[in-house]
Amino acid sequence: MTFREIVGVHPLPGSLIRQVLLRCAEECLDCAASCIACADVSLSENEQKLIRVIRVALDCADACEATGRIAIRQSAPNIRLIRGVIEGCAAACLACAQECERHATDQEQCCLCAEVCRRCKTACDAFLAT
Amino acid sequence: MTFREIVGVHPLPGSLIRQVLLRCAEECLDCAASCIACADVSLSENEQKLIRVIRVALDCADACEATGRIAIRQSAPNIRLIRGVIEGCAAACLACAQECERHATDQEQCCLCAEVCRRCKTACDAFLAT
Amino acid sequence: MTFREIVGVHPLPGSLIRQVLLRCAEECLDCAASCIACADVSLSENEQKLIRVIRVALDCADACEATGRIAIRQSAPNIRLIRGVIEGCAAACLACAQECERHATDQEQCCLCAEVCRRCKTACDAFLAT
Amino acid sequence: MTFREIVGVHPLPGSLIRQVLLRCAEECLDCAASCIACADVSLSENEQKLIRVIRVALDCADACEATGRIAIRQSAPNIRLIRGVIEGCAAACLACAQECERHATDQEQCCLCAEVCRRCKTACDAFLAT
Repeated sequence: MTFREIVGVHPLPGSLIRQVLLRCAEECLDCAASCIACADVSLSENEQKLIRVIRVALDCADACEATGRIAIRQSAPNIRLIRGVIEGCAAACLACAQECERHATDQEQCCLCAEVCRRCKTACDAFLAT
Repeated sequence: MTFREIVGVHPLPGSLIRQVLLRCAEECLDCAASCIACADVSLSENEQKLIRVIRVALDCADACEATGRIAIRQSAPNIRLIRGVIEGCAAACLACAQECERHATDQEQCCLCAEVCRRCKTACDAFLAT
Repeated sequence: MTFREIVGVHPLPGSLIRQVLLRCAEECLDCAASCIACADVSLSENEQKLIRVIRVALDCADACEATGRIAIRQSAPNIRLIRGVIEGCAAACLACAQECERHATDQEQCCLCAEVCRRCKTACDAFLAT
Repeated sequence: MTFREIVGVHPLPGSLIRQVLLRCAEECLDCAASCIACADVSLSENEQKLIRVIRVALDCADACEATGRIAIRQSAPNIRLIRGVIEGCAAACLACAQECERHATDQEQCCLCAEVCRRCKTACDAFLAT
């Protein structure tokens, strides 16, 4: 995505942490869009057993989108805020991945969404480990 | 706000936790809008010392907005997800309140915003204590 | 909501247009939250006939939230942008109100949501008439 | 982005319009993230002349994000709503592109952001032409 090039213009010294944070931002934006799509496909099926996955995907989309916005910004970062939000996002991705995995064999949208959520959780964890 | 009446229609049994969660949702939405307004007034002043408060207010707005959306929903809640996101939101509110308080004597928008952030943090903490 | 007090600090000269815009912002934020709640209650009912209203409520929530954010800001406004976005928001509110009204007799959440959407459309139209 | 694969699972018949809409969604999400990054880099420069571009980039980010969310969904679409919101988004992208272009020679972030806004406007216009 183009935002990486724009962030590259930022006067802050490029650092390893920035790369880990931008990876996190990219995964968050991919995951937010995937969760919106997964909730939409699941909604179209009108099945009682999918209400739980629709709910968690809507929540995960919101958490990932906010986290993606925050992780893009480089000016005057507040580390406690960023860490707190990314921890919440990792919890959301884990919850959504686990619920999607319960439907992965017969709901292709859930199978695909679970993968993205796992990848986003890994990117969040990589930042939290710095 | 009208969403409380609509949530009252939800078939889930009304509970004390729901009231605490809805209070949290309402404070999150108030805080998100206040942070957007604070960042905008501070931006118009074009002062180097306000860059930090603009950044943290933009971040806090994003965290609160996502948390407000999640806290409104009642269907099939995932408690770990909700707790994780609200913990992140409390961290964002605290960070924004502290930064705003540093400017509270000469920036009225920061003084007002700090109060809302403190109130939102209290509402998040009240939920986390349940 | 508190954001009105914070906007009152903005150095821009207070004007009639600002009051109409802030009214629009407030209705947008109320409408966004109401649509999220309406979609959630409707989702919990798991009825085929409600898929259309869930979809339109999710869309209306997104349009209103973005419009609310934009209408809060006072610094260096771009009138064409603001008008374009508010026109889109009015279209979203009308679509959601009409779909909700189709279910108003047997779905209380839709009855309540339709009212808020109509009110938000009126506030958008009031701004567009300036 | 992964959401395209997930949308491909949707039972609605694939159509030319869907492809145009998904292209629009992808450009909106790229543009939203780019505008957030552009506003952040511009904020870090603390220059009076950049207040206008920061404001319009924040607005454009919000409009694009909401439009991207709406364009991803395929279930029970309301064409009037979608067209209205995409018209508003095209207005936002044009306004942001024009403001960014005024700074394109000495602000690299604006030069890059203007390109993405133009591309997103083209994708919106392509949908509106269907």
